[in-house]
Amino acid sequence: ERPFVLLGGMNVLESRDLAMQVAEAYVEVTRKLGIPYVFKASFDKANRSSITSFRGPGLEEGLKILQEIKQQFSVPVITDVHEPAQCQPAAEVADIIQLPAFLSRQTDLVVAMANTDAVINIKKAQFLAPREMKHILTKCEEAGNDRLMLCERGSSFGYNNLVVDMLGFGVMKAFGYPVVFDVTHSLQMPGGRSDSAGGRRAQVAELGRAGMSQGLAGLFLEAHPDPDQAKCDGPCALRLNQLEPFLKQMKAIDEVTKSLDPIVNE
Amino acid sequence: ERPFVLLGGMNVLESRDLAMQVAEAYVEVTRKLGIPYVFKASFDKANRSSITSFRGPGLEEGLKILQEIKQQFSVPVITDVHEPAQCQPAAEVADIIQLPAFLSRQTDLVVAMANTDAVINIKKAQFLAPREMKHILTKCEEAGNDRLMLCERGSSFGYNNLVVDMLGFGVMKAFGYPVVFDVTHSLQMPGGRSDSAGGRRAQVAELGRAGMSQGLAGLFLEAHPDPDQAKCDGPCALRLNQLEPFLKQMKAIDEVTKSLDPIVNE
Amino acid sequence: ERPFVLLGGMNVLESRDLAMQVAEAYVEVTRKLGIPYVFKASFDKANRSSITSFRGPGLEEGLKILQEIKQQFSVPVITDVHEPAQCQPAAEVADIIQLPAFLSRQTDLVVAMANTDAVINIKKAQFLAPREMKHILTKCEEAGNDRLMLCERGSSFGYNNLVVDMLGFGVMKAFGYPVVFDVTHSLQMPGGRSDSAGGRRAQVAELGRAGMSQGLAGLFLEAHPDPDQAKCDGPCALRLNQLEPFLKQMKAIDEVTKSLDPIVNE
Amino acid sequence: ERPFVLLGGMNVLESRDLAMQVAEAYVEVTRKLGIPYVFKASFDKANRSSITSFRGPGLEEGLKILQEIKQQFSVPVITDVHEPAQCQPAAEVADIIQLPAFLSRQTDLVVAMANTDAVINIKKAQFLAPREMKHILTKCEEAGNDRLMLCERGSSFGYNNLVVDMLGFGVMKAFGYPVVFDVTHSLQMPGGRSDSAGGRRAQVAELGRAGMSQGLAGLFLEAHPDPDQAKCDGPCALRLNQLEPFLKQMKAIDEVTKSLDPIVNE
Repeated sequence: ERPFVLLGGMNVLESRDLAMQVAEAYVEVTRKLGIPYVFKASFDKANRSSITSFRGPGLEEGLKILQEIKQQFSVPVITDVHEPAQCQPAAEVADIIQLPAFLSRQTDLVVAMANTDAVINIKKAQFLAPREMKHILTKCEEAGNDRLMLCERGSSFGYNNLVVDMLGFGVMKAFGYPVVFDVTHSLQMPGGRSDSAGGRRAQVAELGRAGMSQGLAGLFLEAHPDPDQAKCDGPCALRLNQLEPFLKQMKAIDEVTKSLDPIVNE
Repeated sequence: ERPFVLLGGMNVLESRDLAMQVAEAYVEVTRKLGIPYVFKASFDKANRSSITSFRGPGLEEGLKILQEIKQQFSVPVITDVHEPAQCQPAAEVADIIQLPAFLSRQTDLVVAMANTDAVINIKKAQFLAPREMKHILTKCEEAGNDRLMLCERGSSFGYNNLVVDMLGFGVMKAFGYPVVFDVTHSLQMPGGRSDSAGGRRAQVAELGRAGMSQGLAGLFLEAHPDPDQAKCDGPCALRLNQLEPFLKQMKAIDEVTKSLDPIVNE
Repeated sequence: ERPFVLLGGMNVLESRDLAMQVAEAYVEVTRKLGIPYVFKASFDKANRSSITSFRGPGLEEGLKILQEIKQQFSVPVITDVHEPAQCQPAAEVADIIQLPAFLSRQTDLVVAMANTDAVINIKKAQFLAPREMKHILTKCEEAGNDRLMLCERGSSFGYNNLVVDMLGFGVMKAFGYPVVFDVTHSLQMPGGRSDSAGGRRAQVAELGRAGMSQGLAGLFLEAHPDPDQAKCDGPCALRLNQLEPFLKQMKAIDEVTKSLDPIVNE
Repeated sequence: ERPFVLLGGMNVLESRDLAMQVAEAYVEVTRKLGIPYVFKASFDKANRSSITSFRGPGLEEGLKILQEIKQQFSVPVITDVHEPAQCQPAAEVADIIQLPAFLSRQTDLVVAMANTDAVINIKKAQFLAPREMKHILTKCEEAGNDRLMLCERGSSFGYNNLVVDMLGFGVMKAFGYPVVFDVTHSLQMPGGRSDSAGGRRAQVAELGRAGMSQGLAGLFLEAHPDPDQAKCDGPCALRLNQLEPFLKQMKAIDEVTKSLDPIVNE
């Protein structure tokens, strides 16, 4: 529990070389700071706004890159799956497989994920209340898997905006599973640019600190050496050269939070 | 354009006999009222809140029932698909295939749907602004299909509530494709019951009239002989014995609306 | 009940001459169409975004103009009050006094209004649920006044946006008092311009039709001969030269709606 | 700036004796913890849900109690005003006078407040975006007062719910005035009980920590010896006997936050 686990990496596997560069930076910083680390990247962005948007290398090529990172840096990896047939192959490489927010109620995908040996990271959909995540946990449990974690990534707030309800973390922690916070996707402004999502990356540390003040099991983060050139979600990304000071902040808030006694105010 | 098309039926194919009964009632009423009619039912409810919820007969058995209805009553049919492999078989029976709201940004599914000969009904996700639907239309067009229609079914409004933004219809109509209104799903209260969605079916005529006052190409409706016994979304369903007076109301509003000259107030 | 009452006029009393011009246009059109009519204008805009925004002629001068309109055109008038001391003088001229939305929970103002002989039009605040309006009705009743009406004008929907929940009309009608719809303020985009509210006046007929499809006691409307030059809320205003075709639309929807039998779908 | 200022006290002046008891507890704990302290209480709750709700001792009696607390404990005091005539008398006792959220756009009240010598605490309305607070600041400046502070207390999120947008603090801090966080009112569930607001007081420390992680000038807090018996907003109140551990938590997060270097991630 101390400190939090970092599920950190890049949005999509833009190339093998960039992935290696990003992984190396994360590994170096997290070892220096003593933060348990899992490399994150997507092999396919299955729900881009535009059909011509970059999607990534695909399952086969993507898993090869993840496998290379896993071995080279001796770190576990997490990646997201989008259809039942991807679950088994992904779980052979990835230690954690992730249920995307938009798909979080698709029963077949949930069951296929539960049938692997991987841990499942369940992203909370933008249209679900925190207490509704109980149903998805139950689906996984009934499918025979209780190695689960929940991930907050913001709620729909009017059009083209997300808000993170800080009270939702406590609601979800009460379910008894680890809760993590996807700070970079929570910065999205959906549909905020003409053909893709906008973001508020300048405020990444502010939102990250708020999340870490909730005593979370983990932080989910995407960084990029040059966010303006990122092929997906650059408006939300942390600059890779800010990784160390950013994680120092997160660790500082996490440590003090977890040192505090609970306040009982029923 | 006059009157609207009714995409009407039942939520899920509970049984062959119930489907026949429901179709017969719709066919009789719509012929009497002169409303063009398409039978709607789902062969699989792929995103129920609970893993033990009833899902339906599945693709193969469901398509058989739809085929029987199509032939027996000489009506076109619409059904929803959830993964790329279902699109081709569904399109061999269904005249219109439907992109579910939660899945409306899944590129592979959109492309697989576009590659069939069916018309595509795109449900607007609860987390999307009306103007963002343009991206999904473009995805379909770029995949080679422009037999498209858009369907409103409410926007997330805080937790466990949906609201229909009447101004969204005009925004979507400006894209140049037919716009239809799913009145019954718009009545949902997501997560409103302990293990499934609640609903506000007592207000179905109120919300339906508001929609029809917007000059729409079609209305999407689910009815059931006994909503309290329905296997899915009963809290939103119209009682089948109210179908005739309900559609008379909808037709009355539609007719007067479409007889009006536009007001120019830029 | 047939047809609806029009509470129509202009946002703020920009000048005596403009008010007379606007009143004359409304009187002519409503007599032609057989719509009961009440002239509406504000003597003071007490909550403009900017301190330098135009506020109006003030209580004394404003009431003089309202009195002149009342006599010259033999129409009742409605105006809004902002503090307890304004209620009695306003009620000596105005047949209906209006509780502004932002102030709708200020007990002293409510009580002072209730202590006059005027009818009270209660604007629903953007931050209140329809069912919460019951409390404000009860406040008025307990203060000894039951000549009350409720007015919908949109709910906060994220930042800088309003949405009208069509299901709210039915909730409020169940309280047993007349419900009216302020269509032009519902078109506001609060804070949508750098120093004042924006609006969506091009959609005034769409939103108006949706409201009239709910079977309402009245419609609240602001018009201006030249909305781009209006001193307040021009982005929401109807062009005065569109008043007749606009009201014809509203009357057409209202008439057909009120001719329909209720649908019982509990 | 280090540590934050506490604007703390009770919701409404239930009685002189209770006020003295509450003030004494705050004074003792804040001195022990080295937190600058301002006593807060309302002399009138002007916008209760029900006309029969307890409102407080009124202006004259309330100011006497505030004066006594000010002298006895040598602390500054803050109280809220509701109409222009209250500003001058309130400012003769109170060091800070507060603009209520619902009234935050009432120009006359803002100007009357600005014409006193008191500091003005501007509550952000539940229906305003953070960037709109700039207009209210400008109103005060143009009225000749720049001793201003802004106070977050949650945004409307659907019906009967508030959410605190953590990104709003940064937006408001950029205006150059102190920003404080009203943690207890942000816990309200407006209209959540049959005749008054509900609340989520069990989560007060969670939400408080999130706020303090934003590097704020101050915290606004209401406590009560027995929240279930409080005459207003008990569902949001901190138990007075939890004041010391609660403030220790807030101070711990505040201190670590303010020791961190800014992250630049434009």
